[in-house]
Amino acid sequence: MSTTRILPSYIQDSWWEPADATDATVVRDASTGEEVVRVSAAGLDTAAALEHARSIGQHSLAPLTFHQRAILLKQFALALTERKQELYDLSFQAGATKNDAWVDIDGGIGVLFTYSSKGRREMPQSTIYLDGAVEPLSKDGSFLARHICTTLPGVAVQINAFNFPVWGSLEKLAPAFLAGMPTLIKPATPTGFVAEHMVRILAESGLLPAGAIQIVNGSARDLMDHLRLGDTVGFTGSASTADSLRRHDAVQARGVRFTAETDSINASVLGPDATSGTPEFDAFVRGLVAEMTSKAGQKCTAIRRAIVPTGMTDAVAAAVRERIAAKVVVGDPRGEGVTMGPLASTEQRDEVLQQLMKLREGGGQIVVGGDAGHVTLADGTLTDAPEGSAFVAPTLLAFKDAEADALHTVEAFGPVASLVEYGSPEQAAELVARGGGSLVTSVASHDPAFVSELTCRIAPHNGRILLLDRDDARASTGHGSPLPMLVHGGPGRAGGGEELGGIRSVLHHMQRTAIQGSPAMLTAVTGVWHAGAPASTEPPHPFRKSLAELAIGDRVVSERREISLEDIEHFAEFTGDTFYAHMDQAAAEANPFFPGRVAHGYLLLSFAAGLFVEPAPGPVLANTGLDNLRFMTPVSPGDSLQVTLTAKQITPRETEDYGEVRWDAVLTNQHDETVAQYDLLTYVAKTQQPTA
Amino acid sequence: MSTTRILPSYIQDSWWEPADATDATVVRDASTGEEVVRVSAAGLDTAAALEHARSIGQHSLAPLTFHQRAILLKQFALALTERKQELYDLSFQAGATKNDAWVDIDGGIGVLFTYSSKGRREMPQSTIYLDGAVEPLSKDGSFLARHICTTLPGVAVQINAFNFPVWGSLEKLAPAFLAGMPTLIKPATPTGFVAEHMVRILAESGLLPAGAIQIVNGSARDLMDHLRLGDTVGFTGSASTADSLRRHDAVQARGVRFTAETDSINASVLGPDATSGTPEFDAFVRGLVAEMTSKAGQKCTAIRRAIVPTGMTDAVAAAVRERIAAKVVVGDPRGEGVTMGPLASTEQRDEVLQQLMKLREGGGQIVVGGDAGHVTLADGTLTDAPEGSAFVAPTLLAFKDAEADALHTVEAFGPVASLVEYGSPEQAAELVARGGGSLVTSVASHDPAFVSELTCRIAPHNGRILLLDRDDARASTGHGSPLPMLVHGGPGRAGGGEELGGIRSVLHHMQRTAIQGSPAMLTAVTGVWHAGAPASTEPPHPFRKSLAELAIGDRVVSERREISLEDIEHFAEFTGDTFYAHMDQAAAEANPFFPGRVAHGYLLLSFAAGLFVEPAPGPVLANTGLDNLRFMTPVSPGDSLQVTLTAKQITPRETEDYGEVRWDAVLTNQHDETVAQYDLLTYVAKTQQPTA
Repeated sequence: MSTTRILPSYIQDSWWEPADATDATVVRDASTGEEVVRVSAAGLDTAAALEHARSIGQHSLAPLTFHQRAILLKQFALALTERKQELYDLSFQAGATKNDAWVDIDGGIGVLFTYSSKGRREMPQSTIYLDGAVEPLSKDGSFLARHICTTLPGVAVQINAFNFPVWGSLEKLAPAFLAGMPTLIKPATPTGFVAEHMVRILAESGLLPAGAIQIVNGSARDLMDHLRLGDTVGFTGSASTADSLRRHDAVQARGVRFTAETDSINASVLGPDATSGTPEFDAFVRGLVAEMTSKAGQKCTAIRRAIVPTGMTDAVAAAVRERIAAKVVVGDPRGEGVTMGPLASTEQRDEVLQQLMKLREGGGQIVVGGDAGHVTLADGTLTDAPEGSAFVAPTLLAFKDAEADALHTVEAFGPVASLVEYGSPEQAAELVARGGGSLVTSVASHDPAFVSELTCRIAPHNGRILLLDRDDARASTGHGSPLPMLVHGGPGRAGGGEELGGIRSVLHHMQRTAIQGSPAMLTAVTGVWHAGAPASTEPPHPFRKSLAELAIGDRVVSERREISLEDIEHFAEFTGDTFYAHMDQAAAEANPFFPGRVAHGYLLLSFAAGLFVEPAPGPVLANTGLDNLRFMTPVSPGDSLQVTLTAKQITPRETEDYGEVRWDAVLTNQHDETVAQYDLLTYVAKTQQPTA
Repeated sequence: MSTTRILPSYIQDSWWEPADATDATVVRDASTGEEVVRVSAAGLDTAAALEHARSIGQHSLAPLTFHQRAILLKQFALALTERKQELYDLSFQAGATKNDAWVDIDGGIGVLFTYSSKGRREMPQSTIYLDGAVEPLSKDGSFLARHICTTLPGVAVQINAFNFPVWGSLEKLAPAFLAGMPTLIKPATPTGFVAEHMVRILAESGLLPAGAIQIVNGSARDLMDHLRLGDTVGFTGSASTADSLRRHDAVQARGVRFTAETDSINASVLGPDATSGTPEFDAFVRGLVAEMTSKAGQKCTAIRRAIVPTGMTDAVAAAVRERIAAKVVVGDPRGEGVTMGPLASTEQRDEVLQQLMKLREGGGQIVVGGDAGHVTLADGTLTDAPEGSAFVAPTLLAFKDAEADALHTVEAFGPVASLVEYGSPEQAAELVARGGGSLVTSVASHDPAFVSELTCRIAPHNGRILLLDRDDARASTGHGSPLPMLVHGGPGRAGGGEELGGIRSVLHHMQRTAIQGSPAMLTAVTGVWHAGAPASTEPPHPFRKSLAELAIGDRVVSERREISLEDIEHFAEFTGDTFYAHMDQAAAEANPFFPGRVAHGYLLLSFAAGLFVEPAPGPVLANTGLDNLRFMTPVSPGDSLQVTLTAKQITPRETEDYGEVRWDAVLTNQHDETVAQYDLLTYVAKTQQPTA
């Protein structure tokens, strides 16, 4: 690699390099100190890039449904998987071990797969998301409301940390993309070359909609100045940078949505029951060592405070020391058997050593590590850390004074954690809370009472809590791993924001709006039939229509069927459901809800199916389930039953020759009272000749 | 009323007055200029009040379940209803007409009723709220996650506007109270005497949990200084005050959640189809006049921009003029027939007149009103506005230049609106968006295509959209009315926050936390049984247990029942459901989902009920419905069926002698494959002797 290589940016759908890069920042290999690349965005027109996203990017994403965007996310994931070795190779230069890179690269690809899957399972085949249930606003049903979410009309800017260049980009890209927002990535300079290559793979795949993704490598100090209402900023990094970005007028006065996820003083609590030798003690120690050494402790989620029962400091320290000796090999990630790399840069190393000094001055005593340690080079040599490299040995401190400020406020963003003891669950909870808001706390205990009490106390101070015990230790994904289906972020010190969490974070990129109107207008706006809107009973029977022919509001109104006492008795005998309310007049009358003997709810459902079914083969392939069934009026012998079935929502599957149809089912009696209602779910073929 | 009366504050569960009120602000009757009360909080210990809420208030609310808090909200509503005439009498002094006061007082009480009802219907009988579905995290089911919401550990501070002293307090109180957060009310000085009396009624009712509600009447400039992580601020008022509060370190650096709802330049759009004489034209004009005159236009949600098709300005202006002449009587709210009162104070009047001047300078021409007008006094006299009163006549301007800045940025917070024309739906949408984010836009049109297109375009710029047409005009609650079940708030200029919206705003007062763990631990923490957690099959059958005896995890595993071809044919014949997949082997085999003839889904449900039922009278009173039924594996003749039913969630009703039990139902075949699963819902008596 040439030492004069300038890292390009991907702007307005093409690659861009500065004309003059004399002021470029030099990025060096964290293990060897060798130059990797130079980074500069001098002269880059940030405003034009943002405007490109808002015009071209929005325009190319807007027509795609959530499902179509979800399919693209899966294709992105497959394109990256195919070339992921290139990303692994680059990651070594950033000091990442193979395992660190796996978390970053495969973890990032995993986020794409998860969002692709959730987007199709939990969002509609539409560009509008319906949030929550129908809200009736008038007694006569003529006025109702629905909350809808629509795409924010701007660009999703992500400002990322250096530690996970791939995951950090993709975990923000996936929900924004699904929401229909174009993304502009601003990676951290030390590892921007990895993020750049990820974008390059996507760009070369030919899958990217125009304007959907851009990346600015280099300083973009004017970025915030050009943001406006409808744009979002997702920031990951230090609390102090978050603070200054949040105070920018773009956020304060121009309505730009700002989400911060900052490193926090996370905790891990050992339960009183988790004494040495228990599986929970082992899980606690394994977790602590993993969080100290994975990514060399450079994780926002890493454990900084290990909170243990009175008297447990020595046992935990000894176990940590032992496990580090047995399992941790510090060195150049390219070296055989190396499990922990250097910090990202010598600047990071110096910063960590400075914070470590503050922890010691604040009352922390080193019980594990602390010295420079030896490192394994790429060729296997065991030696002192080379000049210009950024190694720090895993270090554990112990605090005697649980109230020491440094313990709860000083963060060494490296392989550094502190031990402290607690006397009661209340005190453990107070110590966790002293962190001022955390991304995650883990609790290692097999005592449900302790876990339950502690969890309820600490939940308001955490974005995530991991409960570790013998039952889940093997399957656990670990303290430090944010998962795409779970919210990531935490209150206070942790930034006060939320990312991920499945569809929740898609909605962060959309505006929620309450729409009030008539059933017909709500149907027109949402594409989902609302009770009271026009319905068509024109033949043919809607079950004879393929998805291509079926329309929202297509309806069948069945014949009436009278329910006899014989029907009820026969059903009881046949099914074995001889519940007294069906069989015993006196007992049924004594029941507060029944006038006397009544029909079985499942008898009604079954008769309803008999009333609306179309027996011959046709586009309706299967009844797959039902939702929200409520029995509302008891049915007595002599009552007659009618069912009205209306096509409510049609969801063609992108990759199948069928789709789901949700039918509004209402069962009424001869007085037009609603007896039961539910959503009936079916698979229906897209055309009249399904491929079987 | 004595002219030296000082308005007290309710602090730390007792009434407080300043020792020295020489600097008190004088509040005057807006119609007569007479002194009403003096307001001062000089010497009030704000920090102690906040700490009282955080300690005593949190402590008294924490043990109450959502349902218990909901019942209290209803009791608050009843206590206020009983004495609401006192609030009406006071409201006249604030310039509110009877109708204005109705919106404020009955509207506020209505919010309490709605939250009471929603709290019981949509939240659990618990102190923890479960957000979203179970997230499986491992294939073996040993590791999963659930999002829970827990009460924020601080105080909910509300800083209110002067226009709706009762509603403004109660709409913020209800969700905070339901969440378990104590409230501190800081009303606006001009109408604080109405809010004070509302708190007085509640305090005198004896219903208030200790520390749950406090009110500070008077300036509390140090309020923000004493807030910290876990506290929330709900602000209503001007965008500029919101801006300065938001920039406070409490919000920026200490993690206090801040929600602003600011007045905005809301719009109303007349559809091209809504020509003169159509019901939509009439609804549009009625809405515009109502928003100009209700509360004398002093509403955050009032229409400021009426956006009409090219050429419609004159027709709309004429109709507005006519309706004002016919329906609007400006005067002292105590005067007979008065429908529009003065502004809240002479300061407000001067401010409105100043903004009106800016609108005229910016291109607006007065087409209705504009002069001082005549007013009706309390004794019925028609005269010029008295000295010291705050009357402004309803005023409509017309702008020729739709792009005029003043039109979209200047707000006269009084009975003032502007008319402007659009040429296309795109232009109408652009004009709406020019407001920079609004609380609400209404659209009057009976054309679904126009409504649908416009709504999708403007939704990202609005918190609420009202679709007005002939079908809902009668039932519509109007452009300007936020409803408790719908989100209130809007992007950008409107403050960027959300209030109300049913349970959504309860969750704004809680912290969402992802809890990862084993099924047993998630069950212990949430009180809801999670699949994979321990279950007990100890006799008796769980249907024989009352709510008092039943425990989460109580289970019945049924016998097996073989399904024969005769069963299927018999069921088909009996119910009429002769769908080919049950009746025709060749056709069923051609279906992509079935191996051949299969049992009806409802046959399986019915047999399952027969397998788990306990026929004799007992605590289980009724099967009320089921949720999330999914058929997962087809059942062929010869397969055998077994059902496992486990008590999943128990919800005693506070005011009934029964409650709901949600059962986890799993149907399996002889290969232990899941055939179907669902949640079964039942009513179960609290004790073995239910009162029938």
